[in-house]
Amino acid sequence: MKMLINVPETVVADALRGMAAAHPELTVDVENRVIVRQDAPVAGKVALVSGGGSGHEPLHGGFVGPGMLSAACPGEVFTSPVPDQMVRAAAAVDSGAGVLFIVKNYTGDVLNFDMAAELAEDEGIQVAKVLVNDDVAVTDSLYTAGRRGTGATLFVEKIAGAAAEEGQPLARVEALARQVNEGSRSFGVALSACSTPSKGSPTFDLPAGELELGVGIHGEPGRERRPMMTSGEIADFAVQAILDDLTPRNPVVVLVNGMGATPLLELYGFNAEVQRVLAQRGVVVAHTLVGNYVTSLDMAGASVTLCEVDEELLRLWNAPVRTAGLRWGV
Amino acid sequence: MKMLINVPETVVADALRGMAAAHPELTVDVENRVIVRQDAPVAGKVALVSGGGSGHEPLHGGFVGPGMLSAACPGEVFTSPVPDQMVRAAAAVDSGAGVLFIVKNYTGDVLNFDMAAELAEDEGIQVAKVLVNDDVAVTDSLYTAGRRGTGATLFVEKIAGAAAEEGQPLARVEALARQVNEGSRSFGVALSACSTPSKGSPTFDLPAGELELGVGIHGEPGRERRPMMTSGEIADFAVQAILDDLTPRNPVVVLVNGMGATPLLELYGFNAEVQRVLAQRGVVVAHTLVGNYVTSLDMAGASVTLCEVDEELLRLWNAPVRTAGLRWGV
Repeated sequence: MKMLINVPETVVADALRGMAAAHPELTVDVENRVIVRQDAPVAGKVALVSGGGSGHEPLHGGFVGPGMLSAACPGEVFTSPVPDQMVRAAAAVDSGAGVLFIVKNYTGDVLNFDMAAELAEDEGIQVAKVLVNDDVAVTDSLYTAGRRGTGATLFVEKIAGAAAEEGQPLARVEALARQVNEGSRSFGVALSACSTPSKGSPTFDLPAGELELGVGIHGEPGRERRPMMTSGEIADFAVQAILDDLTPRNPVVVLVNGMGATPLLELYGFNAEVQRVLAQRGVVVAHTLVGNYVTSLDMAGASVTLCEVDEELLRLWNAPVRTAGLRWGV
Repeated sequence: MKMLINVPETVVADALRGMAAAHPELTVDVENRVIVRQDAPVAGKVALVSGGGSGHEPLHGGFVGPGMLSAACPGEVFTSPVPDQMVRAAAAVDSGAGVLFIVKNYTGDVLNFDMAAELAEDEGIQVAKVLVNDDVAVTDSLYTAGRRGTGATLFVEKIAGAAAEEGQPLARVEALARQVNEGSRSFGVALSACSTPSKGSPTFDLPAGELELGVGIHGEPGRERRPMMTSGEIADFAVQAILDDLTPRNPVVVLVNGMGATPLLELYGFNAEVQRVLAQRGVVVAHTLVGNYVTSLDMAGASVTLCEVDEELLRLWNAPVRTAGLRWGV
């Protein structure tokens, strides 16, 4: 598999250098692998720190900025960042109002963020944590005990980030993050495998003419393989899987997310089918986002995330945000 | 090649339905294939209309909105829209201040926009045209007499769009668009071919281990094929090709553009190398944009566009824009 890289060993560092050049509004510590909003720490404001393996861009570094994350820690490709990065990030952004760690549910991330929380607390930083585990496809998986964290991460980071930006206290920001996660569900499909730079070839085999229903964002196996389906059939399956597990009483925000290699033309077409199924099921849509937000390197495919929002969550969702990957209202 | 579609025949219509659902701030006429900003016509404002074959999203429909295009006409995949679409778009957005057609230099687009201009003028609409032809890779090509129009289209649409939004007259908006095109140069590389829905398989053969230097946005042949190069070597080649043809006396805005299937992680790493070469060559960078803006379906690869900007062009570049694909300042 050909890649636009120098050597696998420098992929993450190279990307951070390129991000620093494109985004002078961020402080990018290439050596220590921490991306921080430039005005941090913001006096009196709760700070939000997330991170995870690289290869899911714009998640998480692309979501650092006013109204969303205070800092992000990128690990090696598909590998958790280390506790040192997280502690360094927390120290850089804590104003004394405390730090919320937003952790996708993968074993390495959970262990490392747990350790980082202890270390940060030893340094006098107040830390709360929220675990994101929205993927309904499978219960346990290659990298996970329990449900995997995927698209809901964007909703947690955006909505909790807006609350923090308004000056809400740590306990409230944490409670909102938890509420967002509890009201969110995702389901993804792969049309092709992805290739990591270190392996240089597809991480799994997906035969021509088949798709993987319920794939994880690292290419982990999903529920089943089937002969290729139409966009409409995939939307039926994915939304059904979500609504088997979530009965929204409020409107939802919809994320139709590309895995990386699926053209935007196809993602918009898929969104038309997702909206059709939601309308048929009587689900009210408050807002829809279509694009590549939580990617899996060069995987072809898409995921759907629904996030149930009450008036307060919708207000926070719509609040201004200014990051590399998500921007409105400013 | 597996695709996230229903049937090839409905790909464009499906995408427009999905775009309409995600973007209530746009008026999407699915049947007639015209995307219009909802508040058009804006009294006293020059209108900008562009369009071209589908498969390059977010170009052009994703650039409709305040500060950029007034309307876009998507054709079939890699096929020019027809004059009827363009006339309909012009009629929908003209406030009496005139319409600027922004035309990428491909034979079909040029002929159809010419015909549309005549028809629109017959209806009493004042029309000016600007041709975008920034690609230095080859002089003539599969779909083109003369240089192809690629990444500079984004700069023309953004900067001319900002001038129109300020209320500048048609002659001035046209002159600015022309100045942007004349000061812009692009060069693209492909690591893989793209597949159109109707063909269902790659539109050209690119052997394992080779890349195409100077590829066009429909997969048209470039200058040469070589064994795979590193990101740094590609940046050296691409920037050199551009600077052979453009000697910037002012700062440049840089677009590091993904062709569709190259991960953002790699694009940022490539940007680091592009910035290195520009610094070595003494080119001053005013702003950099990294992402998928002018795509080629599922092609892997990237292009670099430099746009030389004086103070006025840079001011217009930085002016607020609110579209699906580019947004800042509002």
